[in-house]
Amino acid sequence: MGSSVSSGSTLPPQWAGRSFGKRSQPISGQSTGRVWGVERWLVRRLLSVIGNPPIALVLWDGEAIGHAAPKARVKIRDRRTFWQLLSNVYLHFGDAFSDGRIEVEGDLLEFLEIIYGAEDAQPRNRLAAALADWRSKPRANTLGGSRSHIYHHYDIGDDFYRLWLDREMVYTCAFFPSPAVSLEEAQAAKLELVCRKLWLKPGETVVEAGCGWGALALYMARHYGVTVKAYNVSHEQIRTARQRAKAEGLEARVEFIEDDYRAIRGRFDVFASVGMLEHVGADHYRQLGEVIHGCLRPGGRGILHTIGRDYPGCLNAWIERRIFPGAYAPSLREIMQVLEPRSFSVLDVENLRLHYALTLQHWHERFEAVAPRVEAMFDAAFVRAWRLYLVGSLAAFRTGSLQLFQVLFARHGCNEIPWTRQRLLAE
Amino acid sequence: MGSSVSSGSTLPPQWAGRSFGKRSQPISGQSTGRVWGVERWLVRRLLSVIGNPPIALVLWDGEAIGHAAPKARVKIRDRRTFWQLLSNVYLHFGDAFSDGRIEVEGDLLEFLEIIYGAEDAQPRNRLAAALADWRSKPRANTLGGSRSHIYHHYDIGDDFYRLWLDREMVYTCAFFPSPAVSLEEAQAAKLELVCRKLWLKPGETVVEAGCGWGALALYMARHYGVTVKAYNVSHEQIRTARQRAKAEGLEARVEFIEDDYRAIRGRFDVFASVGMLEHVGADHYRQLGEVIHGCLRPGGRGILHTIGRDYPGCLNAWIERRIFPGAYAPSLREIMQVLEPRSFSVLDVENLRLHYALTLQHWHERFEAVAPRVEAMFDAAFVRAWRLYLVGSLAAFRTGSLQLFQVLFARHGCNEIPWTRQRLLAE
Repeated sequence: MGSSVSSGSTLPPQWAGRSFGKRSQPISGQSTGRVWGVERWLVRRLLSVIGNPPIALVLWDGEAIGHAAPKARVKIRDRRTFWQLLSNVYLHFGDAFSDGRIEVEGDLLEFLEIIYGAEDAQPRNRLAAALADWRSKPRANTLGGSRSHIYHHYDIGDDFYRLWLDREMVYTCAFFPSPAVSLEEAQAAKLELVCRKLWLKPGETVVEAGCGWGALALYMARHYGVTVKAYNVSHEQIRTARQRAKAEGLEARVEFIEDDYRAIRGRFDVFASVGMLEHVGADHYRQLGEVIHGCLRPGGRGILHTIGRDYPGCLNAWIERRIFPGAYAPSLREIMQVLEPRSFSVLDVENLRLHYALTLQHWHERFEAVAPRVEAMFDAAFVRAWRLYLVGSLAAFRTGSLQLFQVLFARHGCNEIPWTRQRLLAE
Repeated sequence: MGSSVSSGSTLPPQWAGRSFGKRSQPISGQSTGRVWGVERWLVRRLLSVIGNPPIALVLWDGEAIGHAAPKARVKIRDRRTFWQLLSNVYLHFGDAFSDGRIEVEGDLLEFLEIIYGAEDAQPRNRLAAALADWRSKPRANTLGGSRSHIYHHYDIGDDFYRLWLDREMVYTCAFFPSPAVSLEEAQAAKLELVCRKLWLKPGETVVEAGCGWGALALYMARHYGVTVKAYNVSHEQIRTARQRAKAEGLEARVEFIEDDYRAIRGRFDVFASVGMLEHVGADHYRQLGEVIHGCLRPGGRGILHTIGRDYPGCLNAWIERRIFPGAYAPSLREIMQVLEPRSFSVLDVENLRLHYALTLQHWHERFEAVAPRVEAMFDAAFVRAWRLYLVGSLAAFRTGSLQLFQVLFARHGCNEIPWTRQRLLAE
């Protein structure tokens, strides 16, 4: 299968211009004179604010400030980077890490867990939180905006994702019946779990909003005898999904449509959305609820599988800016803004947070194993950015900064629902 | 075991004065002259507004208005009742039904399901909904208010509840592994389900907010080797619960405390509340969250088991006024107002709506079997009021007007949680 991406030259504009040009190689020894007293004071103050965790900062003159026996040493190469960090720590940390202007000596995961943990342990300052949220407010997901945001992440090339995702190319949280099972098995188990929760019956119709490379839609048709219409705005993903349907002889039962969830037409027994709500944006939850209301038959049911949070707040600014533009991880209360206005009845919510941590651990290991090939495809900065994104997400799920909710719902008052979850999940 | 209630003379003041005095016997044939044209027009209009369901209204002159082949005929005995219904249909329907000024011929359950169904099918008029909610706004649950509200319902006599509840006297939704199991088994299965969801370990400490007659606290101590502090403001229930603990030799491990949830002191591994949130009132959710935050150890977890709704709205006005003063059934979004401010992490939500319908079906059957004894204890109006409450609640759960949520949560970032629910629920 072809891919439009074979070198760094086809990076999306937000990346190519900012952090991944050939100019952004690690800058070795590029110090900018003596470190001022006020800079040392600011580092100490910053470390104190986040509770003096076991880390040290090494400034461009080589002096280490912070914990005496640090678990990680963060090297900041120049004055400009230092002052950028003070202006917007999350955004500039990510950019400087990708550029090589910041290096982390020690275990990157442990370092990021310390940071997430320290952040969570702080009493929440409402003003500071509001300011931080305003700065990292996700971009609007208008129809045009959503398309460009999705191109940004998902159209950088199937070949890249194929290097380190599982065989079925499922780019959402897996479900590990036991922590020891392989990623391949865990992704298959997740597809099966979603189908069981939805108690699919042969001949039923399903609409999927945000179908990735089509793994769930194909699984449903293959194993449950349903007909699926699957939507996605990513051109590359839809093309691959269609090829897969054809190769399996499932084109008659799985239709892949290159369009936005707001373009869904028709009436279906089941609505499924796995890993799309993150891209919808909180301003559009009510609209999504209307889409579901409009396309679900009486007696219909659905599932929303999404990254979430224990309390409302924006994603890390760097992730939102460089990795997932327009993305937002909702709290459970916010998710209800999709379902409550049309009185959908929540039947079941499951939090698979630790399963996403384990999924990311697998992805990161597989990514590191192919890092030289990724660097050849793009450049070293791209590899560092993806390393930070994967390890940072792993840290976020391990510390509880992010959650993973599967929310099963049905039409209000529908009594044709499984009697118990025990029956639903039994072999 | 003693009871302070042996006759109708000890009814709580809200009831004794209003609907259950000896004067409120069915008023037979007390018509109030000819039915006016405007009254007939209003009946037709009312039936039209709720979608002309298959029911008929019979006014005091004997004329039936409405469906030609009605599934239920509602007889209104006098003009005063008719005009009261127009002013606040839910409140006055309940009062007049209890008094005998309204009778329902046909299947009461089917009639109430038709009414709930018709109501749900209406497009929601925001102004009308706001007005209805304002009229039936629950009374404030201040410390004093909560006490009097709880006395109202739970202190009318253990002897009464003992007549028709299960052996363990569990007055909350049961869990039926299969619809065919008995109420006794289903209540035991519910206690077991709650304990499993909380993955109780021997030696742990539990605080229970709103413990009824102590069934869950005693079950936890008996089967899971934990120590429980259980709170309840109902004097009668606490007295019975203490007697049960003593009879079982569990006094050292289960302490029953006659006090409000806001008086909880100490630190515990587990917080449990089954069927209390309905009495807390939406204004106090944040306060309840603070109580949980204050009493839960790091790594602690908890469960909120509560009647709820698919969208926010007040309880039926009559239920709130005569049966459960101060009660409110929250939507899932509203429940999150308890948990989000302190970043509790929701692990699992299960909706047991149809299990509550079946529980109420059992309760109603058992209640009817002892109705003559209940009438001898109180009076006929009390029996009719409880019949309406039980059958009305059954209709509300069957139609989806009410839901039953079990919300399992843990401290933010706690990783000592069960890996899968499959493991948790396995034998």
